[in-house]
Amino acid sequence: MHRLGKRLVRPLQQLFQSKHSLTRSSPISPLAFRKELVAFNSVAVENDIDNRQLHVKWDDGTTSRFPHIYLRDNCQCPNCFHPSARQRNISDTSVLEAYDVNTKASQAQFYPDRQEIEIKWDKDNHVSVFDTNWLKMRRFPTDRDQVGHKIIYSDRRLWGGDLNGDIPTTDFNEILHDDLELYKWLKNLARVGLTLVKNVPEEVGQVERLADRIAYLRVTNYGRTFTVKSKHDPSNLAYTDKGLALHTDLPFFDLVPGIQFLHCIKQAAGGGGENQFVDGFNVAEVLRKENPYYFDLLTQHAFVYFDIGKDYVEYNQLNHHPLITLNGRNEVIRFVHNNHTRSSILDVPEDKVTDIYQAFHAIIQIMYDPSNLVTNRMESGEMIVFDNWRVLHGRSAFQLTAGGNRHLEGCYIDWDETASRMRAIEEKLKMKNFTGVI
Amino acid sequence: MHRLGKRLVRPLQQLFQSKHSLTRSSPISPLAFRKELVAFNSVAVENDIDNRQLHVKWDDGTTSRFPHIYLRDNCQCPNCFHPSARQRNISDTSVLEAYDVNTKASQAQFYPDRQEIEIKWDKDNHVSVFDTNWLKMRRFPTDRDQVGHKIIYSDRRLWGGDLNGDIPTTDFNEILHDDLELYKWLKNLARVGLTLVKNVPEEVGQVERLADRIAYLRVTNYGRTFTVKSKHDPSNLAYTDKGLALHTDLPFFDLVPGIQFLHCIKQAAGGGGENQFVDGFNVAEVLRKENPYYFDLLTQHAFVYFDIGKDYVEYNQLNHHPLITLNGRNEVIRFVHNNHTRSSILDVPEDKVTDIYQAFHAIIQIMYDPSNLVTNRMESGEMIVFDNWRVLHGRSAFQLTAGGNRHLEGCYIDWDETASRMRAIEEKLKMKNFTGVI
Repeated sequence: MHRLGKRLVRPLQQLFQSKHSLTRSSPISPLAFRKELVAFNSVAVENDIDNRQLHVKWDDGTTSRFPHIYLRDNCQCPNCFHPSARQRNISDTSVLEAYDVNTKASQAQFYPDRQEIEIKWDKDNHVSVFDTNWLKMRRFPTDRDQVGHKIIYSDRRLWGGDLNGDIPTTDFNEILHDDLELYKWLKNLARVGLTLVKNVPEEVGQVERLADRIAYLRVTNYGRTFTVKSKHDPSNLAYTDKGLALHTDLPFFDLVPGIQFLHCIKQAAGGGGENQFVDGFNVAEVLRKENPYYFDLLTQHAFVYFDIGKDYVEYNQLNHHPLITLNGRNEVIRFVHNNHTRSSILDVPEDKVTDIYQAFHAIIQIMYDPSNLVTNRMESGEMIVFDNWRVLHGRSAFQLTAGGNRHLEGCYIDWDETASRMRAIEEKLKMKNFTGVI
Repeated sequence: MHRLGKRLVRPLQQLFQSKHSLTRSSPISPLAFRKELVAFNSVAVENDIDNRQLHVKWDDGTTSRFPHIYLRDNCQCPNCFHPSARQRNISDTSVLEAYDVNTKASQAQFYPDRQEIEIKWDKDNHVSVFDTNWLKMRRFPTDRDQVGHKIIYSDRRLWGGDLNGDIPTTDFNEILHDDLELYKWLKNLARVGLTLVKNVPEEVGQVERLADRIAYLRVTNYGRTFTVKSKHDPSNLAYTDKGLALHTDLPFFDLVPGIQFLHCIKQAAGGGGENQFVDGFNVAEVLRKENPYYFDLLTQHAFVYFDIGKDYVEYNQLNHHPLITLNGRNEVIRFVHNNHTRSSILDVPEDKVTDIYQAFHAIIQIMYDPSNLVTNRMESGEMIVFDNWRVLHGRSAFQLTAGGNRHLEGCYIDWDETASRMRAIEEKLKMKNFTGVI
């Protein structure tokens, strides 16, 4: 049977199972690295040549073992690590050597004044120098020392209706011109997943301007940006005056666009057109608690999504995702739900079909529970920006009037580029924060 | 422990384990759907109201059970399924109803003349009409009837050195102007993963021209396109005259770019600059056979990749992938390997570090086995296009001469857009083929 497609890799170890349960406001883990700057009084270094390992006993009494091959592989000298490219130099001729576990350090010594460990290699007398802080940050997790894990928990705030009237709000000009304001806005976007930007000029081109401020936008089959107006023969239901059920966008891509921008250039004069938002991660956690079997069904079976038509290009898109994607710690990292583009191809065993519909029903009931819904009617000149891997959005039907048409412009940008920008600002402003993989 | 990150979801059922082994030239599975057009003499329809199921006994004696809720959910009438958007109409008010497993078909009948099954719904007397072929294509897999699976095996040709001098080759102008030639080229790209395009004008802009012919290119931190020339203070080792070890590009993205274009505008006058290519899927299968433990290590542990610098934008990219990614059938669907950008952060347990290096060593030995290598020196006016989820590429060092500089232009495009284009051509040219998820 084909179930989860490419996101399902291999059985997790028993170790990982059922040990983690998230509650509201609890952290969700991206990958990131601690920044620790410690002055060591004494670091005891023992070179275990027989086992090709360096034992480093830290100030706190713990000991880390670094295989020699790891240290050789990560020599930071300009010959081994290209300084401007910041990339490892391995040529074709040295590539097998670079992974030779017989690689041997003949000498190792700690220099307290420089806070460095110097290692001399047996084969070619090459010398590698490691900053002790650098090395301690890279120690490996052991049964004794779980702190060695390179993951820190990034703080995510799960929310329900409590976010009504409390959506993190920022000013267009400030984030456009001030790096710290830009960073704070993006941090809110990563943490809460839903933000409102005010004082945006009421003309097209502003979503791209803001995306360019981060990095560059994500082009899709709907173009660089898209215009949401009521159209004849629409290529997408969004381009009608109908209401739209809660959904995440563009699930027929392998990489579902990470962040969506929606700029209200003109709101419907005749009323309606409010947006609804729901925190999919919160919804998933409620389901996990209420009905673990349904929760499991929605993580274990992928649903097929498609989109056929002509817009920016002629397209016939197809991909598949489970509704809920978990990482190796069983934490929710993606929520994909889109009834409009869900395929009639349902690749689940016959005897599971009804259960799957029940699981759908259960999660949709949580989704539409008024206590989980946030409603917002954008004014002209406002832009809503949200995490499309997490936050579902919908809209109520609106009235077409002679007075004028509702007019939104939207675009997407991905989390890789956004997190990259956040890290670049952290480095530039010498911040303590380090943004992991989102 | 955090291992595989987001691609590791949940334990696979025992069912999926160790039952699949690929050999060279054996198929690798994307998801796709059979196109079967059969005229049914007799389809026996039994409406099992108690269990809310429609039993359909086909000509061949097999029986499929369709839960009523599935049929109601997939009614194809213009009210339920928007004809131009080709999307399911579900409004906020009907969304819970749409998943109500108590939904009941009061009548069901097969009309042999129209080859249709007509269903009348109890609640609102709505009528749904299903084409029997349409329905048979969507039957669910059962223990009795595995054919119900919606996956077909797309043919992938694994290769080694046998591809030397035999890289599928096509003409730039033909694929630019003839849809069928474009399709055949892309089919080779999907099947073999390595293609050569000849008669390309020796000037910049051709990679984008060809990407636009498919859909649109993928922008990265290196821009819309990138120029490979030797540079001072390069942001990437590719921009030096050094050799490059075998690698796949840009592993520090969640969605690693799927396809790479490299257009040789001018080859090095002084010699060198040949490209080496290796089929990562083939390499993975050899390792799986030779050393299943190492193979497992490389599927179970993710490696961190990063890229810091300034090029098209200021970037600080970070992501992680296992070297080998498997789908739910334990088939290889991604191969990610890049020593240059692999991080010194290695998040694996201390007692596995040496084994991991041994696994690396083993797979690199297979990679560089001359019998697996394909070498090609592009002439000016040639373009190499390859699957960056599968094929590793490298290059030998080249000589800078006063006579002129080696000059390549490259860009990326993703598989979603490419497969979408293939499906659109299949529909346009009324082909029997159906391209699945790649």
